[in-house]
Amino acid sequence: MKNPKVVILGAGYGGMMTTVKFQKMVGTNEVDITLVNKHDYHYQTTWLHENSAGTLHHDQTRIQIKDVVDFNKVNFVQDTVQSIDPKAQKVQLENGELEYDYLVIGLGFETATFGIKGLEENALMISNINNARLIREHIEYNFSRYNNEPGERDDLITIAVGGAGFTGIEFVGELANRVPELCKEYDIPREKVRIITVEAGPTALAGFDEELVEYAMNRLEAKGVEFLIGTPVKEATEDGIIVEKDGQEEEIKTKNFIWAAGVKANSIVQESGFEVNRGKVEVRDDMRAPDYDNVFVVGDCALIMNEETGRPYPPTAQIAMQEAEVIAHNLKELVRDGSELESFEFNNRGTVASLGQRDAIGVVFGDKKLYGWTASVMKKVIDNRYLLKLGGMGLLLKKGKFKFFH
Amino acid sequence: MKNPKVVILGAGYGGMMTTVKFQKMVGTNEVDITLVNKHDYHYQTTWLHENSAGTLHHDQTRIQIKDVVDFNKVNFVQDTVQSIDPKAQKVQLENGELEYDYLVIGLGFETATFGIKGLEENALMISNINNARLIREHIEYNFSRYNNEPGERDDLITIAVGGAGFTGIEFVGELANRVPELCKEYDIPREKVRIITVEAGPTALAGFDEELVEYAMNRLEAKGVEFLIGTPVKEATEDGIIVEKDGQEEEIKTKNFIWAAGVKANSIVQESGFEVNRGKVEVRDDMRAPDYDNVFVVGDCALIMNEETGRPYPPTAQIAMQEAEVIAHNLKELVRDGSELESFEFNNRGTVASLGQRDAIGVVFGDKKLYGWTASVMKKVIDNRYLLKLGGMGLLLKKGKFKFFH
Repeated sequence: MKNPKVVILGAGYGGMMTTVKFQKMVGTNEVDITLVNKHDYHYQTTWLHENSAGTLHHDQTRIQIKDVVDFNKVNFVQDTVQSIDPKAQKVQLENGELEYDYLVIGLGFETATFGIKGLEENALMISNINNARLIREHIEYNFSRYNNEPGERDDLITIAVGGAGFTGIEFVGELANRVPELCKEYDIPREKVRIITVEAGPTALAGFDEELVEYAMNRLEAKGVEFLIGTPVKEATEDGIIVEKDGQEEEIKTKNFIWAAGVKANSIVQESGFEVNRGKVEVRDDMRAPDYDNVFVVGDCALIMNEETGRPYPPTAQIAMQEAEVIAHNLKELVRDGSELESFEFNNRGTVASLGQRDAIGVVFGDKKLYGWTASVMKKVIDNRYLLKLGGMGLLLKKGKFKFFH
Repeated sequence: MKNPKVVILGAGYGGMMTTVKFQKMVGTNEVDITLVNKHDYHYQTTWLHENSAGTLHHDQTRIQIKDVVDFNKVNFVQDTVQSIDPKAQKVQLENGELEYDYLVIGLGFETATFGIKGLEENALMISNINNARLIREHIEYNFSRYNNEPGERDDLITIAVGGAGFTGIEFVGELANRVPELCKEYDIPREKVRIITVEAGPTALAGFDEELVEYAMNRLEAKGVEFLIGTPVKEATEDGIIVEKDGQEEEIKTKNFIWAAGVKANSIVQESGFEVNRGKVEVRDDMRAPDYDNVFVVGDCALIMNEETGRPYPPTAQIAMQEAEVIAHNLKELVRDGSELESFEFNNRGTVASLGQRDAIGVVFGDKKLYGWTASVMKKVIDNRYLLKLGGMGLLLKKGKFKFFH
């Protein structure tokens, strides 16, 4: 009898954790496991804002897949997924095709541009390692140009960030620490540099406790970050952005516009014919797609309703990892013809948003609010816990964050 | 009686060394010395190729003027010289005017573009700290773009250097060391990157011993540097350069074109009405301008004929520093109404050209040829000797090069 073929698409939080958990549950000759990913590394999406600002090197954010996946049990294919045919049980790659008996879709997110004119062409996006180091270099290059260009080219040292959600806020927090270093490096007075956060919604950090939001904004403003709340971006051009403030259009001249205002599920899911809700697959309790018993969906491509609020849980690393544990267990049951499928239940361990060096805000243990240094330590503890879970002590020591006083 | 007014224009090798030597020869209340410079720092022009390649930080190359000039004796004015009126004995600055009894012109060089079309707009020049760090960031930014652009954008990772003279060769030597680091940083295979040196003349390092030139080219070629000798640049465009090879025009696509093919004296000298030869003031034996007894010219603005060869001595840091010592002495004589003016005589201590890390070529002690590591150590010894001369042991320890094995 042939071994069942399990194919896992994507080595993000969901796909990676599924692979690592599942490989430990099965024997070497029990299942053929294949993991497909564009790069030979996994990266921590939640650290990319630091790489983008230039406050953390991207090599700390990425993890070689071979360092955590057991290549005796898992066949790794470095390729890009083009489409999925769930009826024929096939996956089309750029350079090949894979057949499966069981599939896990963990293809992650794409940036949502909400149809804003010029955004695709003129904004930089914090979406992967390549983009993150491009943003770092893009900003640094413009700072290096400042003293070489005739006239006062303030657009070169103005940084506009679209979105004051989680990513936008964490990014400007890092920028506030990075900018003084750039000013020193390129002999630019700090007061000439502007960091502007533009948010269409009525508040920064929507969904967070109001008191924490106010703390965050005060702290960031004290570090020179400007906020334009209730101010949608209407257009992005080569020279800057056009925003709408109190019914008036206004131009902000900048050569550094970073869009951090929203993500959507990888469009391959919808294009492959799965039934979707807001572009995502609304999975069953056992994390399987509603229309296919052999397809699991994890992370940003999966939608799970929070029955208390009637709205979907936001896509986070935390929920993706919890989903992966259920999927690994259920995969094991299915390949062994078991029937003890587990149901997913979200265990909210809280959320902490970093505000740059030694500062953060968060809610943990249900309703305990955290501020400042304490919160920043908690943030690092959460980051480190993930590494421990993924790759054990070795990985934690290699890639962990231990500078609690920085 | 009023003190005589001595004004020194420019804090390059010549102006700086004149100031430092002269301030030690006179008392605090004997002369009014004013030093004018665009920046509040002096920099070592001969190290800029390292800053440009990104192998040495520019803060090691620049020296705060206050750290070596005695501000009790010297009045420092940070301003830009616009013109000199030698008849009225006045210097026009961007923000003021200075009168003088004695003047030292050390205004350095400008890049010579030889009328090549598009060069001014599309080439980067290694001419000061601002340009050097721009070049470093320009190249790094293009490398960071490579994996973010659709198609094979090899022009982003092709570096073309105009000129295989001293600066061009030293620069590609550093690039050959830097490029593997950039490849690692941005996940680019080294073999995709091209470093191309384009030289109009019939040889690289014109004027150097043939055997040494061959050694240099072999070593650089082994590190992946390509040479196009006898190949003038006809035009520089936004997309690259057009060169003429064997009567045929050929395009090299590159977003990184650095022009290192020639310098000329600061044009302010000629525009201020001094008698010039090749744009420079052909000074008398005592380093004074032929038509003004109270004006000295030092460094790249001065021309001194080598009577043996019938050609001018090339403008180097070495000759500028030797000129400065004569000028300091002669200034002292003049302000004290003495008449023992010294004559300048060039004492050729040899020349060493760096080929990147741990490699160099040179001629010292008249005709002794040096290669490889020995030459690279000698190069550092020369660099360090300058620091010792300029600012003593304190400066040497702060800014010296001591990594002989790197």
